[in-house]
Amino acid sequence: MSAPHTFDQAIALAAQSGEADGRYRGQTSPAYGNMVGPFGGVTAATVLHAVLRHPALLGEPVALTVNFAAALADGPFTVEARPVRTNRSTQHWVLEIVQADAQGLPTTVLTGTAVTAARRQTWSVDDEPMPQVPAPAAVPPREIPTTVQWVRRYDMRPVEGNIPAVWDGSGDASRSTLWVRDNPPRALDFLSLTALSDVFFPRVWLRRAQPVPAGTVSMTVYFHAGSAQLAAVGSGWLLGQARAQALRNGFFDQTALLWSESGELLVTTHQIVYYKE
Amino acid sequence: MSAPHTFDQAIALAAQSGEADGRYRGQTSPAYGNMVGPFGGVTAATVLHAVLRHPALLGEPVALTVNFAAALADGPFTVEARPVRTNRSTQHWVLEIVQADAQGLPTTVLTGTAVTAARRQTWSVDDEPMPQVPAPAAVPPREIPTTVQWVRRYDMRPVEGNIPAVWDGSGDASRSTLWVRDNPPRALDFLSLTALSDVFFPRVWLRRAQPVPAGTVSMTVYFHAGSAQLAAVGSGWLLGQARAQALRNGFFDQTALLWSESGELLVTTHQIVYYKE
Repeated sequence: MSAPHTFDQAIALAAQSGEADGRYRGQTSPAYGNMVGPFGGVTAATVLHAVLRHPALLGEPVALTVNFAAALADGPFTVEARPVRTNRSTQHWVLEIVQADAQGLPTTVLTGTAVTAARRQTWSVDDEPMPQVPAPAAVPPREIPTTVQWVRRYDMRPVEGNIPAVWDGSGDASRSTLWVRDNPPRALDFLSLTALSDVFFPRVWLRRAQPVPAGTVSMTVYFHAGSAQLAAVGSGWLLGQARAQALRNGFFDQTALLWSESGELLVTTHQIVYYKE
Repeated sequence: MSAPHTFDQAIALAAQSGEADGRYRGQTSPAYGNMVGPFGGVTAATVLHAVLRHPALLGEPVALTVNFAAALADGPFTVEARPVRTNRSTQHWVLEIVQADAQGLPTTVLTGTAVTAARRQTWSVDDEPMPQVPAPAAVPPREIPTTVQWVRRYDMRPVEGNIPAVWDGSGDASRSTLWVRDNPPRALDFLSLTALSDVFFPRVWLRRAQPVPAGTVSMTVYFHAGSAQLAAVGSGWLLGQARAQALRNGFFDQTALLWSESGELLVTTHQIVYYKE
């Protein structure tokens, strides 16, 4: 029996007092450490994990929004996932992460909402074709001159808009395109797809070629694929593309897409990100 | 003294038991009626209204997400806006609308979150230039062959991607561009800007040239402008552009932008929308 993937260890949850109350205990993982606290993508995935293992779950994820209210401290935390409205084919969730503060008092470090749905086959079309880029095998992996742990948990192959090699203020565009998958590879599911939605470095670094402090404040993921489509991707590559639309007075947005290698649009995702200076 | 604008009447709130508990009484407005219940944009604005008049408010809106958990019934409802985390320069809000169901029991019809912030001047740039289009005065108003009330509350001047004149299944693109403002004109603020973020008809109607049932499930608004910038727009025109990126198995996304006539990007906004067939 092989050990679970590092990602599954990082998003592991333990029921606190029976599954039915939707409260679970989690623990930050040093393997996905960021500059301060854990990689936000893994935190978002952990919250969705609480939804997906809730006994009252209806259907599969359609939308997830998480707001990073404070830096998660390394250590244990509690995730709460509460289904507040269940309709015939959709279900609405209220999400929260609570962690003890320096005084040991429980404080909210993340708020969020999710929508799950029992989806039916309908007329469908992708209206945002995958950009034509070289195949993953033809693109060299990104050089990682960083000690930030989570970056090492992904195999990233930048096609366009890599992290600037020189911070000289020369930036003129905010778009990045890259092949990406878990490292080591792991079969894609809603949880890893949530984390992959957050792999893009801050757009302001690229647009300015200046490494100013930045951190995601709110992140929304729209899931366009069902579990069968994700299973078909397996441990294959995704193509990700992200760009900013506005950077103004301390906050910029990021709008991003993730396609399977065969060109199916799996996720569209959006962030608003704090930056300094 | 002139009567308040119809929009201000529609989003009016009455404190329930003192301002400090963040619970307010609202009432749907026939003037903003949709096919079923009220126009979602006004509902979203009403929720943000509760945040903006809360005595504990810090700063101005940066992000708002609302999830339409059920059709709001015409009549009274309660909005709750709760600041769950206040940092030095950002504040995190949990939002809810509760309404009595057919049996008179309180039920959740909307969930949401918001982030407000005290913004500082920083290096800034718009990375999504306003499309070059004819001036508003040169574009004829949209013909409104509908009895839906809220549509009449906006002056819309479509430049591209108007509602199909014939429902013949011939659609091949999902993008609409239009000039829009309140009708009659009203000075822009965060509340009207929130409602304006939802003025785009369902993308699936355009993409398919088929009027299938559709309704917004979740909507996120990122505010890139502060109140001074909005005041400078006054009752001027906004240019809106919306498109879908994926339409699959009962849900499509919408990604949209709103610029001032002078070309400042005020809002980027996203939705996931249910559709049938």
